Amino acid sequence: MKIAVDGMGGDNAPQEIIAGALLALDEYPDLEIRLYGRQEAMKPYLKEHDRLTIIDCTEVIEPEDDPVRSVKRKKDASMVRMAQAVKDGEADGCVSAGNTGALMAAGLFVVGRIAGVDRPALAPTLPTVDGKGFVMLDLGANAEARPEHLVQYAVMASIYAEKVRGISNPTVGLLNIGTEEKKGNELTKATYPLLREAPVNFIGNVESRELLNGVADVVVTDGFTGNIVLKTIEGTAMSLFSMIKDVFTSSAKTKISALLVKNELSGLKSMLDYSEYGGAALFGLKAPVIKAHGSSNANALFNAIRQTRTMIESDVAGTIHRTLKGDAEK
Amino acid sequence: MKIAVDGMGGDNAPQEIIAGALLALDEYPDLEIRLYGRQEAMKPYLKEHDRLTIIDCTEVIEPEDDPVRSVKRKKDASMVRMAQAVKDGEADGCVSAGNTGALMAAGLFVVGRIAGVDRPALAPTLPTVDGKGFVMLDLGANAEARPEHLVQYAVMASIYAEKVRGISNPTVGLLNIGTEEKKGNELTKATYPLLREAPVNFIGNVESRELLNGVADVVVTDGFTGNIVLKTIEGTAMSLFSMIKDVFTSSAKTKISALLVKNELSGLKSMLDYSEYGGAALFGLKAPVIKAHGSSNANALFNAIRQTRTMIESDVAGTIHRTLKGDAEK
Repeated sequence: MKIAVDGMGGDNAPQEIIAGALLALDEYPDLEIRLYGRQEAMKPYLKEHDRLTIIDCTEVIEPEDDPVRSVKRKKDASMVRMAQAVKDGEADGCVSAGNTGALMAAGLFVVGRIAGVDRPALAPTLPTVDGKGFVMLDLGANAEARPEHLVQYAVMASIYAEKVRGISNPTVGLLNIGTEEKKGNELTKATYPLLREAPVNFIGNVESRELLNGVADVVVTDGFTGNIVLKTIEGTAMSLFSMIKDVFTSSAKTKISALLVKNELSGLKSMLDYSEYGGAALFGLKAPVIKAHGSSNANALFNAIRQTRTMIESDVAGTIHRTLKGDAEK
Repeated sequence: MKIAVDGMGGDNAPQEIIAGALLALDEYPDLEIRLYGRQEAMKPYLKEHDRLTIIDCTEVIEPEDDPVRSVKRKKDASMVRMAQAVKDGEADGCVSAGNTGALMAAGLFVVGRIAGVDRPALAPTLPTVDGKGFVMLDLGANAEARPEHLVQYAVMASIYAEKVRGISNPTVGLLNIGTEEKKGNELTKATYPLLREAPVNFIGNVESRELLNGVADVVVTDGFTGNIVLKTIEGTAMSLFSMIKDVFTSSAKTKISALLVKNELSGLKSMLDYSEYGGAALFGLKAPVIKAHGSSNANALFNAIRQTRTMIESDVAGTIHRTLKGDAEK
């Protein structure tokens, strides 16, 4: 199995990316990695490895680059070359911790959509209180969505939850402002009956108040709402942790208290860190494209490679294609 | 000044509602209260008061009642009679802790819209880390919104923030999935240029990650997104507090730690309890209609009455009317 890796993407590139790739090569004897990036920048961190191929690229897509324009113009960027390797059959899937929008553009324009999927969707696994996690999409690949897109999201994420996350018959919820069928805006009202007929385990509308309680294994929404929910969860958690920190440093008494629970509370913080659940999958492309978190360290990158590997092995893309064509054998 | 109060609304009615009304009568010598409800149910908690008038009503709108239908059919419900008193000029504003949807319907169909306002909006003040709070709307009065509605929301909430919350030249942000002007869905893209021309202190797009940091004094969005954000904040905070509770009860060591910070942490929890910031105002009606939190105690109800009083005194409704007519003297 061959996986292409963008050596230049993310805050800790190339050092941590390379370290993560080497970890994966050690773990999986059948894995070959093609690493794309500036040879000179990567050199200090590289090791000789017979299953590691280095491809020197002259360009890098920066975090602030315009996604579509940079993918179209920077033909020799590590991310674009990585996607091209997938298209050309030199790799079975790819991983990048770089510019999210650019990776979506590279996925769409270079790797290409599965026939029958109107729009790829960005789907991270988000944390729940019980540690099980849930897949939510779309989280921003497309701001607007039509009802049939949400149905495709539900089908794609159900296949992923089953094949990669190992959840049998995963439940699917439609994010809404109330649980009753008639609640919501035009999009959710039109989507509800379509989801009931779709080949997924639809459990009805779910409210955002219940997301972290694990109300469903898959939650579908349009990219605008999804992106806002993701950032609201992040912002609320960050604000709370900063307020708790203030409480713990406010007096000698509270500082003693802090010492006693320090380890437990930092465990809590990492439970809510969704990069621990692996990268965000881009669903609907002809091959697995995984967006690792921008702040990925070696371990997060290793997890993203493992996730890509499972998606390849379990043929998520092929199953999505067959299911959406209607001749599914889920 | 006369304020009508729904004696039967909320989880703690009528006892806490009556107690809150009596507190307000004590505090404000110029205040008269008209209290609507089942005389028999209210009797045990009532005190003789020369500025308190009891109006016996035979019906009550229940939390599970259909909002519009119940307001149209239960003509003798305490909430409907309360709204009717405002319409008939027997009261200058009103307060209920009952069914939110029904109160919006009573506001719209009985009290009536201000000319120039297409849609009333529900606007609570939400907490921020620094304790200042911000007004966000619409949080669910209307699931769908057009760009001109968001502009009206911005104008109404700016007037409220200035007159009732005492914030001079309040900043207005448009909730979006990025800060750049061209970001977002069709609604936000069309609203951005209109807000720039509107008579408000527009500071551009704001992201949900920054809401609790007090990124703007007023944040506008459609009712679907707003309701989902509100419930995401609530759900994330509740989940975190429950996880923290688990941490503190996990061992003898952490239990000692808990004892040392107990007071400080419960202070934190109440800081995030947005009922402490008063009730949610229904903007765009001819007179102040305030939705007190469903779990209001006497103190929360007292705060909601004080808020109604400030809205009446500072003529928020009249200022909204004049501003939207274009001859504003903000």
